[in-house]
Amino acid sequence: MKRVAVVLSGCGFLDGAEINESVLTLLALDRADAEVTCFAPDQPQSDVINHFTGKLATESRNVLTESARIARGKIQPLSQADAALFDALIVPGGFGAAKNLSNFASRGAECEINPDLTRLVKAMHKAGKPMGFICIAPVLLPKMLGVPVRVTIGNDIDTAEVVDAMGGEHITCPVDDIVVDEEQKVVTTPAYMLAQRISEAAQGIEKLVARVLVLSE
Amino acid sequence: MKRVAVVLSGCGFLDGAEINESVLTLLALDRADAEVTCFAPDQPQSDVINHFTGKLATESRNVLTESARIARGKIQPLSQADAALFDALIVPGGFGAAKNLSNFASRGAECEINPDLTRLVKAMHKAGKPMGFICIAPVLLPKMLGVPVRVTIGNDIDTAEVVDAMGGEHITCPVDDIVVDEEQKVVTTPAYMLAQRISEAAQGIEKLVARVLVLSE
Repeated sequence: MKRVAVVLSGCGFLDGAEINESVLTLLALDRADAEVTCFAPDQPQSDVINHFTGKLATESRNVLTESARIARGKIQPLSQADAALFDALIVPGGFGAAKNLSNFASRGAECEINPDLTRLVKAMHKAGKPMGFICIAPVLLPKMLGVPVRVTIGNDIDTAEVVDAMGGEHITCPVDDIVVDEEQKVVTTPAYMLAQRISEAAQGIEKLVARVLVLSE
Repeated sequence: MKRVAVVLSGCGFLDGAEINESVLTLLALDRADAEVTCFAPDQPQSDVINHFTGKLATESRNVLTESARIARGKIQPLSQADAALFDALIVPGGFGAAKNLSNFASRGAECEINPDLTRLVKAMHKAGKPMGFICIAPVLLPKMLGVPVRVTIGNDIDTAEVVDAMGGEHITCPVDDIVVDEEQKVVTTPAYMLAQRISEAAQGIEKLVARVLVLSE
């Protein structure tokens, strides 16, 4: 049974983890009989967005506490994630990846990335374990790995240029497909960077999960 | 193309709609090419539960605003739901059904039910349109319909007795199956009343969605 760490970044695409991407990831992993452990940083969210109006709310929420909604309470602080205990790592997208796991949304190529995530990703990479990054999350990979890595965030030209500026190699990819860097064992898919409907996001995410599990063998 | 209304009750199983059940419902509907419109009551949540600790939080949240996280902002107040515009209705579970759509969690058989939900359900029923209720949500059906209706909430004996006391006929059902009342056009499945893992909930929900769509033909 494969042991897979999933890093969440809140609960809601505008200020946290994209809910559909997270659930589709957990569903595909469970159907493959993987043993999943969810993690999220125990820190305040960058902001809280009212998802009905799309406007900034005045309240404050914690990333771990909100991520626990998706994980049904079964989640641990990201600081406790030990790469040695896992065969693979998957990070769903949503603005949480660009606001809570990093400040990419405001800083772009100059962004800082959560040190616990960087530590985990470096350790997985060093151990030759595969990783799947979804939606906007792949932009964080070149900086964390420190080596050229082939990734996709779909077909957004501006974001793709930033990926290249950060040391990555961006590959245009449709919503129902994945980009695989076999050498670095990194799999990425555009999901809601492009998806117009949940079934589209599901196609790419199912392929991503399947490939990550194959690469972990 | 079938038009299906989905009624959400927040975002998180302890104080709102069960996220996995909601997403699995939306996924199955989208894969069947149904046109989905999400609704939720524009009212304060009954309470807010910290999903990491399981404890009551002191803050206040709005059911519509939180449900919008699952619906990616595409959601309308339940008061605006018009049965004439839909071929079917589906209500996922979670404590939101028992705390926000009703006060079943505190009042049991004596519970009051959101009047907009009652109005919508009665209108769908009168028009002979099918409805699917998931997890704990089926307990609300006998009172709303005012006729004997065959439903399941899994195999919890206490809850099953309350269903019978409210005028329903409870049928024990495993997590991967559904109970169908052909006459009343009502389909129910236990989902997280019984599910130990997301893939189990998915099996029942996929069957429920498929049967609801068949009954709408």
